[in-house]
Amino acid sequence: MSTVEELCLAARKAQPALAMASTGQKNAVLTQIATLLRERTPSLLIENQKDLDAAKDAGLSGAIVDRLRLNADRIAQISKGVEEIIALPDPIGGISQLETRPSGIRVGRMRIPLGVIAMIFESRPNVVIDAGALCLKSANAVILKGGKEAKHSNLALATLLSDALEAEELPRKAVVLLQERSEVNTLLEQANTVDLVIPRGGEGLIRYVTNNSRIPVVQHYKGVCHLFIDESADLAMASRIAVNAKTQRPGVCNALETLLIHEAVAEEFLPAITKKLRALGVVLRGCEKSRSEVPDMDAASEEDWHTEYLDLILSVRVVEDMNQAIQHIDTYGSDHTESIVTTNYQRAHEFVARIPSSAVMVNASTRFNDGSQLGLGAEIGISTSRLHAFGPMGLNELTTSKFVIYGDGNVRK
Amino acid sequence: MSTVEELCLAARKAQPALAMASTGQKNAVLTQIATLLRERTPSLLIENQKDLDAAKDAGLSGAIVDRLRLNADRIAQISKGVEEIIALPDPIGGISQLETRPSGIRVGRMRIPLGVIAMIFESRPNVVIDAGALCLKSANAVILKGGKEAKHSNLALATLLSDALEAEELPRKAVVLLQERSEVNTLLEQANTVDLVIPRGGEGLIRYVTNNSRIPVVQHYKGVCHLFIDESADLAMASRIAVNAKTQRPGVCNALETLLIHEAVAEEFLPAITKKLRALGVVLRGCEKSRSEVPDMDAASEEDWHTEYLDLILSVRVVEDMNQAIQHIDTYGSDHTESIVTTNYQRAHEFVARIPSSAVMVNASTRFNDGSQLGLGAEIGISTSRLHAFGPMGLNELTTSKFVIYGDGNVRK
Repeated sequence: MSTVEELCLAARKAQPALAMASTGQKNAVLTQIATLLRERTPSLLIENQKDLDAAKDAGLSGAIVDRLRLNADRIAQISKGVEEIIALPDPIGGISQLETRPSGIRVGRMRIPLGVIAMIFESRPNVVIDAGALCLKSANAVILKGGKEAKHSNLALATLLSDALEAEELPRKAVVLLQERSEVNTLLEQANTVDLVIPRGGEGLIRYVTNNSRIPVVQHYKGVCHLFIDESADLAMASRIAVNAKTQRPGVCNALETLLIHEAVAEEFLPAITKKLRALGVVLRGCEKSRSEVPDMDAASEEDWHTEYLDLILSVRVVEDMNQAIQHIDTYGSDHTESIVTTNYQRAHEFVARIPSSAVMVNASTRFNDGSQLGLGAEIGISTSRLHAFGPMGLNELTTSKFVIYGDGNVRK
Repeated sequence: MSTVEELCLAARKAQPALAMASTGQKNAVLTQIATLLRERTPSLLIENQKDLDAAKDAGLSGAIVDRLRLNADRIAQISKGVEEIIALPDPIGGISQLETRPSGIRVGRMRIPLGVIAMIFESRPNVVIDAGALCLKSANAVILKGGKEAKHSNLALATLLSDALEAEELPRKAVVLLQERSEVNTLLEQANTVDLVIPRGGEGLIRYVTNNSRIPVVQHYKGVCHLFIDESADLAMASRIAVNAKTQRPGVCNALETLLIHEAVAEEFLPAITKKLRALGVVLRGCEKSRSEVPDMDAASEEDWHTEYLDLILSVRVVEDMNQAIQHIDTYGSDHTESIVTTNYQRAHEFVARIPSSAVMVNASTRFNDGSQLGLGAEIGISTSRLHAFGPMGLNELTTSKFVIYGDGNVRK
């Protein structure tokens, strides 16, 4: 049994071989992964069943058991996800902005891998493959630290990744799996071998990792997303967008949580949208002014404005003007996704300029803040931290760039 | 007297006004700064003299006193630096990669400020203006924490920055000065208000900040820069580059520290380059093979290979081939700057691909790793950390991007 330090060092030593692998070689590894997922489906299900049995014995909640569960259909989905990553362009090796400087040197920026990425995640075993495939395509070695409740599933999947690497004559240790919670703190100290930590899971996990890491962390905190209905809004459009943003998939981070309505249109808009949303099972919680328009609405508490419901619940506030809407977002927002519905050119421009969230939208559903919708392809998460990557993180966000300088004997004067 | 928390919050609240300021308004602030530097030179020198007197009384070293010292010429230089930043393009607000997605939304990436940047630096008071001007042009508020030995100078310069902001009707608190060492730990905990910490100074300072910060840190560690002379090198070119890289300005991070020589050319190259470098006052320390070519050369210790001399000292090693050179760089390098001299196309390509340093060069002096030489304009430092920015950090590296989405009532299917 190797120590965490040794395993991280092994990953670091394996990584240069990925960096030098051709696009074809990396895609061959991914093709192997997709093939092995299909071939090994029966044995993967057996390993997964061990985790499910243990979860049942431990009395874990139905939601956790559901997140843990693999079946043939889910494995096929995971395999399809890998094939989508094969189809994406190789993010490594391209040189951009190549130009000749006054000194005569030619200077460009070459995309390179970050190095070694540690993913710390909770119960979903599919993260092993999703994150593994994205890291390998971007030539990063990856340390996977999964939840102990998925330990048999994670081990089978991580072994599959190493087998795929070996089949293409790349080092098995470019993928390393850690299984013990006690290993997390040691992992977070390996700043000499690990370049980036990405925690995926609840707010508690992310805060713990951030507070204990000596390695840079990209955070994916909650999404308390806002939609502001301006006084100039096309109210039919506003209604369509609000319904979509709240109900199309309420359990995800880019779903709408708070609706802000300009007071000039509240009387007309609020009763109508309330009726529509309630018909779809949404519970509304409103400010005092909202409740004067819709008296049977529950009152929103201070707590509500901070809450990511991830459920069919919506908080509603009537605001005096766009300034008050922006102030509300500044106070309660999570830098994730905000949208305005307006027909006014200047308001649209000002809203986009003033809101510092990772995605700011005009006349569109917050549900569009997603790597695949925005054109990045598969994503490893949506960063709410401003350093390195802000918003959806795809293959390119798992890279950095170095300067390349082509000279002809040039020296500094 | 406000607390550190209050001062950081004040900077955070001041920052949106910078984000909304026009290019003209920001340049007007910088013009004010340059003007005030000239106008206030006499009073700045009086304040600086207080620091110099205290340094003398405290028995600080001549090198520290020299770094502390301002004079009319240095102030004019600082002012000129500000004027160069005025001439650079505004890094904020541009939208790139705007494209229409299959859903019909138009998606682009808009450059935005990071927010609040904390600079923690040692004795040079010019950092107040250099860093202040770069942060303000990139619409970031800045917390400046200088060394206590420069407290009078720093206060006078930070006040000047706030005065320039006020003259253009921007908030004074977009620049905040901290003066006490005891405030550093509290500053490093303000992750809710401060977005990035940049320590500038010795390795001890950088390590301390990295190990104690809850906020992302961009590190600027040492530069142990290497030059590899390949067997196919044009030796006249190799000699010119080695001399320039070592002697043109030995006290800076992109100066050459270790010369690696392919053994096939060691016999011809080593005695000649030794003679040239010694004539320029350089002391050489070599491996065993080097010393068999040049017997009166001192022996290099293990320590030497790790050392950034910042002085007229050079370590020299003869290597069997490029693989051994790359292995040496992997072991002892600092991810800063490495260069190869070669006439071989494939070697050049392979060296550039395999070396993961922030700048990799072919047939050029390591001294070119500098923001202004590479086309970035003024720089705030050279990052040796791979996250967010790697290599010279100019105005663009003080920004991040958010996604902007322009729709026409689009919803997710």
